[in-house]
Amino acid sequence: MTLQIQPVILCGGAGTRLWPESRGTRAKQFLPLTGSESLFRQTVARTPAGEHFLPPIILCGDAHVATVREQMGPHEAALLVEPMPRNTAAAIALAVARADAVTLLLVMPSDHVIADVPAFHAAIAKGARLAQQDWLVTFGITPTHPDTGFGYIASGAALGEEGFAVERFVEKPPLADAERMLAAGGYSWNAGIFLFRAGRMRDAMLTHCRAIFEAADRAVAAGMYDGDALYADAPEFEKAPSDSIDYAVMEKDARVAIVPVAMGWSDLGSWQAVHALAAHDPAGNAVSGDVFLHDSSGNLIRAGDKRVSVIGMEGVAVVVDGDDILVMPLARCQDVRAAAKARE
Amino acid sequence: MTLQIQPVILCGGAGTRLWPESRGTRAKQFLPLTGSESLFRQTVARTPAGEHFLPPIILCGDAHVATVREQMGPHEAALLVEPMPRNTAAAIALAVARADAVTLLLVMPSDHVIADVPAFHAAIAKGARLAQQDWLVTFGITPTHPDTGFGYIASGAALGEEGFAVERFVEKPPLADAERMLAAGGYSWNAGIFLFRAGRMRDAMLTHCRAIFEAADRAVAAGMYDGDALYADAPEFEKAPSDSIDYAVMEKDARVAIVPVAMGWSDLGSWQAVHALAAHDPAGNAVSGDVFLHDSSGNLIRAGDKRVSVIGMEGVAVVVDGDDILVMPLARCQDVRAAAKARE
Repeated sequence: MTLQIQPVILCGGAGTRLWPESRGTRAKQFLPLTGSESLFRQTVARTPAGEHFLPPIILCGDAHVATVREQMGPHEAALLVEPMPRNTAAAIALAVARADAVTLLLVMPSDHVIADVPAFHAAIAKGARLAQQDWLVTFGITPTHPDTGFGYIASGAALGEEGFAVERFVEKPPLADAERMLAAGGYSWNAGIFLFRAGRMRDAMLTHCRAIFEAADRAVAAGMYDGDALYADAPEFEKAPSDSIDYAVMEKDARVAIVPVAMGWSDLGSWQAVHALAAHDPAGNAVSGDVFLHDSSGNLIRAGDKRVSVIGMEGVAVVVDGDDILVMPLARCQDVRAAAKARE
Repeated sequence: MTLQIQPVILCGGAGTRLWPESRGTRAKQFLPLTGSESLFRQTVARTPAGEHFLPPIILCGDAHVATVREQMGPHEAALLVEPMPRNTAAAIALAVARADAVTLLLVMPSDHVIADVPAFHAAIAKGARLAQQDWLVTFGITPTHPDTGFGYIASGAALGEEGFAVERFVEKPPLADAERMLAAGGYSWNAGIFLFRAGRMRDAMLTHCRAIFEAADRAVAAGMYDGDALYADAPEFEKAPSDSIDYAVMEKDARVAIVPVAMGWSDLGSWQAVHALAAHDPAGNAVSGDVFLHDSSGNLIRAGDKRVSVIGMEGVAVVVDGDDILVMPLARCQDVRAAAKARE
């Protein structure tokens, strides 16, 4: 019998980079940004329970439990409810604390797009072999352009056919550095997708971030069940320092592997990224809802339940959600937080 | 006793140039585009009933009767209801048909802005003296820039201190011609404001556009009263050819005078014109409603009852009305009809 992998889906993010559609209880992962299915449902469907995968563990906040259940429908899942946001290290520690030591955990954000699922599955198979050799495995996205919005990972020594030892992690770089890394090769984008044996991660956490793991472990032990959901204990979980799994573990551990993969990945981290991935008309406009366009090109127009008329515009985002209307150049969409902050 | 002047306010226009705010029964003239008062109410207030002016005659379509009454409030007015739109010559003919021959009629559009009302009154006084000498008087706006959106009027021989005989009317000119006329001087914009003795206009119409006047005359005779409103008879009025007063009378008559006047006039004929006239922040943004602006300049943002957030935009109009949202460069606002046509 093949070892089944345990998907762990990180669903705790709120995300204001796609404001106004993403906000409050309607976080980005629950929106159908690239079609009829939400990003969360696409994520769940990518590792279906069956021969290769166990039913997923969903890590989410209290505010999202109802939405998670609604979007899971009849499909089996175990919910692990974070009483408050404590970043990815503590969230993953909750899943690790609850798992058998031999279980392989596949940690995935819930709000990414992966166009080539067979390529993802092939990478998981490679990663699983490395994880069983006690590597902490990260999946690296083969860069397509010198993006300054991602961290980079440099590959070191080859580990057979499966991947490479990680040489180093690189923070989000200036453009010149990004261009240099793209030209040099051997660098991947850090996509925040991980695979490891639970016991191996437990040991790593006890070495590198003991306070986080111990708080999560106690929060699970003192947690309360409500049907398929385990609510971690708030007073205990609150003691966990807030840190990312990258900082808390991956960048500190000596045995971290990378499996590079080209799989049509996008984190949809901005309206520009949504525009890039969406279907376009011949003039490069990506529209949804009731949109009238005249002499306009390269725009992202999302009309919500309103009627948007655009004349003579190029390269702008018009995003309508309820009574909120956002208008900005796509090239400026990193600044959307200014509006989100003012409005929420 | 001074001769009182009879204001005649043309309120029949629908106007799609300020779509989406101006449309259907909520025509441009009824909107508070430049402050808290609608353009119609500003027009009425400009010639208040009293020493110099009689209560106004309001020419409007059936669809606008309720709005006219509501906006008049307790103020006296006589409504003359056009059963169908037949352009300005037929509308003015209705007022002429109903008036005593000696009455001075001051015909005004209901959707213009005049900042300097004393200058307007001074011009009316001059025009009244010419009208009593049987001139058909038009008021010409002293041009401030080589606008290609207006017709021009060339002044000829001086008529005392009061004004000039009209030498000729010039259609909306190409830019080079507009620049030439501005440089030459002696040209005014045709603002569609007229003053004449009713009997004099009746004679002119019988000479230049008999079919229009006779149809209007019969439509008044066969009309029905409803309180303060006279509904012109539809079968009779329908026979009136549709023509503008400029084409039908003014450009054909030999005794037309112009009184040039600089009075802060605007026809608010586009969102660009509304932007030009509105109050601006230091960055040149004119906003109304709930608007958040970040790093943006020279925009016109009208949020209606929604919330508009604008980041990094320059020189665009964002106009919200109900469920309609219009986004376009201010410089392209002549194209708004494309959206209005598609949407209405």
